[in-house]
Amino acid sequence: MEHPDLDLDLAVLDERFAAAKAASYLLARASTAEKDAALEQVSTLLRERADEVVAANALDLEDGRANGLSDGLLDRLTLDVRRVGSLADAVLEVIALTDPIGETVSGRSLPSGVRIDQVRVPLGVVGAIYEARPNVTIDIAVLALKSGNAVVLRGGSAAEQTNRVLVGVLRDALELAGLPGDAVQTVDDFGRAGARHLMQAREYVDVLIPRGSAGLIRAVVDEARVPVIETGAGVVHMFLDESAPEQWAVELVHNAKVQRPSVCNALETLLVHRDAAERLLPAVLDRLEASGVTVHADERVRALRPDALPVTDEDWATEHMSLDISVGVVDSLDEALAHIRRYSTKHTEAIVTNDLGNAERFLNEVDAAAVMVNASTRFTDGSEFGFGAEVGISTQKLHARGPMGLPQLTSTKWIVRGAGHVRA
Amino acid sequence: MEHPDLDLDLAVLDERFAAAKAASYLLARASTAEKDAALEQVSTLLRERADEVVAANALDLEDGRANGLSDGLLDRLTLDVRRVGSLADAVLEVIALTDPIGETVSGRSLPSGVRIDQVRVPLGVVGAIYEARPNVTIDIAVLALKSGNAVVLRGGSAAEQTNRVLVGVLRDALELAGLPGDAVQTVDDFGRAGARHLMQAREYVDVLIPRGSAGLIRAVVDEARVPVIETGAGVVHMFLDESAPEQWAVELVHNAKVQRPSVCNALETLLVHRDAAERLLPAVLDRLEASGVTVHADERVRALRPDALPVTDEDWATEHMSLDISVGVVDSLDEALAHIRRYSTKHTEAIVTNDLGNAERFLNEVDAAAVMVNASTRFTDGSEFGFGAEVGISTQKLHARGPMGLPQLTSTKWIVRGAGHVRA
Repeated sequence: MEHPDLDLDLAVLDERFAAAKAASYLLARASTAEKDAALEQVSTLLRERADEVVAANALDLEDGRANGLSDGLLDRLTLDVRRVGSLADAVLEVIALTDPIGETVSGRSLPSGVRIDQVRVPLGVVGAIYEARPNVTIDIAVLALKSGNAVVLRGGSAAEQTNRVLVGVLRDALELAGLPGDAVQTVDDFGRAGARHLMQAREYVDVLIPRGSAGLIRAVVDEARVPVIETGAGVVHMFLDESAPEQWAVELVHNAKVQRPSVCNALETLLVHRDAAERLLPAVLDRLEASGVTVHADERVRALRPDALPVTDEDWATEHMSLDISVGVVDSLDEALAHIRRYSTKHTEAIVTNDLGNAERFLNEVDAAAVMVNASTRFTDGSEFGFGAEVGISTQKLHARGPMGLPQLTSTKWIVRGAGHVRA
Repeated sequence: MEHPDLDLDLAVLDERFAAAKAASYLLARASTAEKDAALEQVSTLLRERADEVVAANALDLEDGRANGLSDGLLDRLTLDVRRVGSLADAVLEVIALTDPIGETVSGRSLPSGVRIDQVRVPLGVVGAIYEARPNVTIDIAVLALKSGNAVVLRGGSAAEQTNRVLVGVLRDALELAGLPGDAVQTVDDFGRAGARHLMQAREYVDVLIPRGSAGLIRAVVDEARVPVIETGAGVVHMFLDESAPEQWAVELVHNAKVQRPSVCNALETLLVHRDAAERLLPAVLDRLEASGVTVHADERVRALRPDALPVTDEDWATEHMSLDISVGVVDSLDEALAHIRRYSTKHTEAIVTNDLGNAERFLNEVDAAAVMVNASTRFTDGSEFGFGAEVGISTQKLHARGPMGLPQLTSTKWIVRGAGHVRA
């Protein structure tokens, strides 16, 4: 797209952001019933206009093929009628979630008699920056709307035509339910300039949530002046200490690596205490290889498993998201902790042990959103944790850490009630 | 100070940040008793070395006078033996506060039998950037240490020599208590380059807290890549609606403006409903003027009060922090809300009313950290809210909003315990 007059463009974007902000005030006051009615409409319109969505998606797919997108990316980009139906179903599940807005988080009467209550309120305007999968457009908008927020969306350019229809569905649904369509805005038609302007829009946008590759997230963190919630990559470790029971070791490593290798809580690196290596590694690696896992091993592992590929320094730092695993032997729990501290992305780390002291040290000393003893790392998940839908998994420490549900899309404000009280 | 080799300098800073990070892991595991023992030592050493502090402060004051610092700034820079004693007392008060670390915030057993607990942990390394007052060095470090965090300090250059001694006191106190002195670091000796490098140090620093003028906070927000908690300026409003009782109006406006005009929760702008202006303004303004307040008024107020100065657009947007007040008449609650939305810094906003509907609308529709009915805005304060010490008052929506106590210097992590549980 050509933009001969960039200043004019940016003014248009500011108008959209301002419209989102104005709509956010109306949405903040909307009742749960009103917001749920709008989500009902989203679900209904998605089904009614599924053909329109699929037709726009076909154009994106055609462009994608012409641009040489990989089969994997084309698959993630694809929306057929069945997938649109699943999206519509997922919207109904969000309706069933508890609305966090209005919850009193804490409250008390001060000694003076003044009453203070900390009440949950929406963040305001949520900016979302994401990549190819157009279903994120519906996911993130619906979660934001349920929690009373307006959204400004920036989807990947590969899904631009699909997203345009989906944004239309969202806006129409809001209007049909008597809420402002302006609560959903997009900057997709402004390409990268739109994304950049969104990242700078502190005046209008309260938080940015990047969803996608490590590269996308890093770019947003680097460029944004709006506060960012990092939903991060997972270089996830599991450590088998010298006491680890063989059956747990085999099953936990296998489940963590193989059950769904393409997600952020899947295992990437296995560390084994030297005194357990000979006892555990044969069965653990046999089980992995039987499921098609490629093992990248250090020298001590390769002494037991000469056919394994040599592991590289880059492997230790990589989230493969595939059936690859890096495996190493360490001399001690301390060495395992040091390795994890060096390579962890602070998502999920686990120990398999039957030693209480080691378990407690691991839980206390590992710095990550989720730290586990004798459980599969795949449990770090909003739906497993009972949050219903998941906005993402925060790997940062401010505001939200770990799986984020609807309450993580809110802030609070203090309501103070007096009867002419002055401060002494 | 001359820095002929900036690359070398920055490497030195990175070493300090890395040392703070390493120390933060030790501090995260320190017991409350160990941390309190270190704070005891801080208090004791402050008294023992008060003369050394005062002597360094005298050098800073001398430089300040030579550099033409205003009397106000010189006063804020001054530490005499009495003020050092007050600082030492304040440290003892922090010892008395509840240690937030280790608190279980939430927890449950998942349907699978896996147990999850969300436990409070330190943020890690807290960066503090502040201006002239050297007591902030002790304040912020002590609050950070109590909550298990390491700190990297950047005080104003005007207090560099005082701060060097105070940092020495903090580091010595930690070592005397068997904790790592490296948990307290400074970048003051690197001037602005040090501050800039601190703001970029995402690898080592978990959060930045700027404390000081609006200009300082804006500069940090603009430059920082480390997440920032804004502790903000307060352009604080009070709205007298048509039902406001006269005595409450007079007392609340007076207390909010006059009780301590130099702080962020002091009143800056008074709005009055047109139907209450003649009834309320004479008494309200008489009371203010009797306390030496200068009134900046709009045309309709000046019709009643011809001697008032005309208010400017800049006045409405200014946090005077002095005995000045901007006063205007509005036609409706909606106009008051619109004015507040335009000029509010989202700190504290109040309505004085005897009308339930107006009170509820104001509480619901105003977007600020604290929203009040019939109470003085001076109540927005950590100690008034019962938090003990106060890190600052957050005017942002992420992580913390309103007065910040020790829990706002923490994050959480999820502790997951299974017995070989895998995800189905």
